[in-house]
Amino acid sequence: MDAKNPKDSLAILTDIVLPGETNILKNLFGGELLARMDRAASIAAGRHSNRLTVTASVNHVAFTQAVPLGSVVTVEASVSRAFSTSMEVFIDVWIEDRFSGKRSKANEGIYTFVALDETGRPTQVPQLIPETDLEKERFDAALRRKQLSLVLAGKMEPTDATELRALFMGG
Amino acid sequence: MDAKNPKDSLAILTDIVLPGETNILKNLFGGELLARMDRAASIAAGRHSNRLTVTASVNHVAFTQAVPLGSVVTVEASVSRAFSTSMEVFIDVWIEDRFSGKRSKANEGIYTFVALDETGRPTQVPQLIPETDLEKERFDAALRRKQLSLVLAGKMEPTDATELRALFMGG
Amino acid sequence: MDAKNPKDSLAILTDIVLPGETNILKNLFGGELLARMDRAASIAAGRHSNRLTVTASVNHVAFTQAVPLGSVVTVEASVSRAFSTSMEVFIDVWIEDRFSGKRSKANEGIYTFVALDETGRPTQVPQLIPETDLEKERFDAALRRKQLSLVLAGKMEPTDATELRALFMGG
Amino acid sequence: MDAKNPKDSLAILTDIVLPGETNILKNLFGGELLARMDRAASIAAGRHSNRLTVTASVNHVAFTQAVPLGSVVTVEASVSRAFSTSMEVFIDVWIEDRFSGKRSKANEGIYTFVALDETGRPTQVPQLIPETDLEKERFDAALRRKQLSLVLAGKMEPTDATELRALFMGG
Amino acid sequence: MDAKNPKDSLAILTDIVLPGETNILKNLFGGELLARMDRAASIAAGRHSNRLTVTASVNHVAFTQAVPLGSVVTVEASVSRAFSTSMEVFIDVWIEDRFSGKRSKANEGIYTFVALDETGRPTQVPQLIPETDLEKERFDAALRRKQLSLVLAGKMEPTDATELRALFMGG
Amino acid sequence: MDAKNPKDSLAILTDIVLPGETNILKNLFGGELLARMDRAASIAAGRHSNRLTVTASVNHVAFTQAVPLGSVVTVEASVSRAFSTSMEVFIDVWIEDRFSGKRSKANEGIYTFVALDETGRPTQVPQLIPETDLEKERFDAALRRKQLSLVLAGKMEPTDATELRALFMGG
Repeated sequence: MDAKNPKDSLAILTDIVLPGETNILKNLFGGELLARMDRAASIAAGRHSNRLTVTASVNHVAFTQAVPLGSVVTVEASVSRAFSTSMEVFIDVWIEDRFSGKRSKANEGIYTFVALDETGRPTQVPQLIPETDLEKERFDAALRRKQLSLVLAGKMEPTDATELRALFMGG
Repeated sequence: MDAKNPKDSLAILTDIVLPGETNILKNLFGGELLARMDRAASIAAGRHSNRLTVTASVNHVAFTQAVPLGSVVTVEASVSRAFSTSMEVFIDVWIEDRFSGKRSKANEGIYTFVALDETGRPTQVPQLIPETDLEKERFDAALRRKQLSLVLAGKMEPTDATELRALFMGG
Repeated sequence: MDAKNPKDSLAILTDIVLPGETNILKNLFGGELLARMDRAASIAAGRHSNRLTVTASVNHVAFTQAVPLGSVVTVEASVSRAFSTSMEVFIDVWIEDRFSGKRSKANEGIYTFVALDETGRPTQVPQLIPETDLEKERFDAALRRKQLSLVLAGKMEPTDATELRALFMGG
Repeated sequence: MDAKNPKDSLAILTDIVLPGETNILKNLFGGELLARMDRAASIAAGRHSNRLTVTASVNHVAFTQAVPLGSVVTVEASVSRAFSTSMEVFIDVWIEDRFSGKRSKANEGIYTFVALDETGRPTQVPQLIPETDLEKERFDAALRRKQLSLVLAGKMEPTDATELRALFMGG
Repeated sequence: MDAKNPKDSLAILTDIVLPGETNILKNLFGGELLARMDRAASIAAGRHSNRLTVTASVNHVAFTQAVPLGSVVTVEASVSRAFSTSMEVFIDVWIEDRFSGKRSKANEGIYTFVALDETGRPTQVPQLIPETDLEKERFDAALRRKQLSLVLAGKMEPTDATELRALFMGG
Repeated sequence: MDAKNPKDSLAILTDIVLPGETNILKNLFGGELLARMDRAASIAAGRHSNRLTVTASVNHVAFTQAVPLGSVVTVEASVSRAFSTSMEVFIDVWIEDRFSGKRSKANEGIYTFVALDETGRPTQVPQLIPETDLEKERFDAALRRKQLSLVLAGKMEPTDATELRALFMGG
């Protein structure tokens, strides 16, 4: 199983926002955006692993900027770190101004997927090798998020979470 | 503005899983579940604040157990802690066995909402007073999650996150 | 098969009204409300019978009050009377004012479901024992509705419908 | 306002049943059928009154025959009786066999609509004149259903419902 | 296999336009109209062939007139010419004015379907015999469209497309 | 208004196929694919013109290969030729094999959009300059399609369609 880099799994889902997909403020309904992010992220996880995958968790999604009716929204998802049988997928959401064509970041999210073999059991995935600075930064942070998630789930002692200890002890 | 307790905002969304809401494994599609959680959580935030609210972030959702086609799914959301203008909403998802009627926990999630006034600006919300042990536990953890979120967003120094420092320093 | 009471089957489906679910008057589209009532009622019928159930008929739905875009709508369904293999389910629909939190009745409906065994044939359901005054009133009226339905379908002679005769003969 | 006959308002909605519109038995989901009936019936009411109309009630829907995935379903709605500002709409639902082309009745329903003027108030509608035997039969029965509905809503004394009294007194 | 005429396959899909089916100009979203045309056309092809059919191509759809929110839209589809195993279906789309009842043509489209046997292979369909002038005109034009489509796909030499040569050589 | 090339308007919509989007053969429903193509194409037209655009026509869509449930489908749309106020958009649809990652062409389509100014009237769009061989080929063919469309609509004499005459006269 050859290692891959984030570009290998990049999934781009550019779509518009129609009235049937809005909330009462005439912005894209949050649940619909979460669903689009889930769809794009599952494609990224599938491209990295060449396996059927299922969503294991949503680690974080920040709704920084509302996405108005009529917007062109681009959801870009790619694997940010591979663990044994799971993958963290980082998702950037962009909107673009119809008239200037200028693109701005609307929000971002982090999901985790697990790869399944033919019998439905978790199975090994290829390693991920980050290349750009941004990819490396997300790769490193993914380990802290993983430890954090284990701590919060009570599956790791806080004192064993070396990455996090370093962060919060300020040294 | 009188303080409220979690029961005041409890929103219950019990619904079934039809074929049009499934993924290719014939389980409830993750994006659809995230949308149902968002809908129930926004009702809880609205009941607590008596205001229009918007989703600010999804802090965590764990997909512990798949929800098969035909299931009866209950999404229960209530405010777990109120901050100045934002509310953390805790969401429990249950499925029940049609034949025995037995209910089991399928997954849980945590969303944050912001209350808006008539001009669309963030506005003060009532305080939340937890009553049961579970409510108190979630109330306390909410502060750690809030600090964590500020640290991750670069808006708080890790060394200032006193709640988290205590946790990871093991004493 | 132990008898049950209406509370045992109570299904609560609280949800919001998004733009994609409205009609041209910006109220909840009637067909969408009928569908939500069907979903909640089928859960109530399932909880009473612990069986797969199918909608046999909609006996009556009154759209007393329009449900505006952005409303919080609560559909509450519970079995109002059990017959041999069928159940009448009574459904109350409430809306609540976002700002005052005050709840008011929007409409109500009555559906009938049939319980099916593993081979898809109608099968026996537990008896229903009403407890409150309202439950008893609905329980009694259910028999009149049942007779009426048989008369209208030509499966019972009007003169045999003793409950109805009493009603219309004024004595 | 010239009187009209049922053919003037006949609305035909022929459509297929796709997987996303089914229930777990792979038949057309009841809520979806109720919505299609509502859409067709509202067109019939609009054609009769040349007004905006809203659903006032569902008087009865009998699900006699399941509608399997892949079926061709024809919903035919036409006004069966006009009252002062309301109209009863009778809806027949047919399915046809793909291979023989043979058509059979799947179920039927009765809805009531109210016509609204520009200010949203109930407004006068044209009279309906039935022509065929079936149309006359439905026209006559509509009055009994109207009385019944008033009696059940507590807006008419059972003893004043002359049409119904005659029916149940057997003479 | 007896020949049929266009009336035998006529499928009528009359429906309304709700907010969830519009674009940002508050007209029926083009993709939704294309889907309704596909549904009606597949019914026409099924009625002509008494077979399962699949869409082979969309030959042309002209969006002449926008269909505003709240419109009553009638999609009428019938087979315009049968070839060996395929059928051209002509689709007329009408909207009607709520207040005058006047009907006007909104647009039209032409789709091609293929009939499949039990094993999923293309299978023979009955011949089509046009009767009215309009039916005959569409029948004749269908052959030119067929040749055109073969030429554009590189499956027929332009110089062999006798119908088209005649058209463009002006004599 | 600076001329643009096809890459400037390229819109990529990669998405999955869920059960609620399939037909009875468990392939992507044709109407849903037409809608996805419309959405991607409208983004391409918007990017080329920096204007609000509306679908004027679907010129051709060939359903060469079925798209099975669970597929990853990529719709790629870019402007292939700009006329005065309208744009031809060429759309390629690809599916990829989950396990090998191999990508294959599923079908293609051609739509025409019109750019609108603030008052809703057709407005000038930038010129398009093709660069690659494929882009040049599509650019040249677009003129023939435009003439053909005018001839079929009776807005151009066949004998004036110089591009088409050359094609069919064989020299």
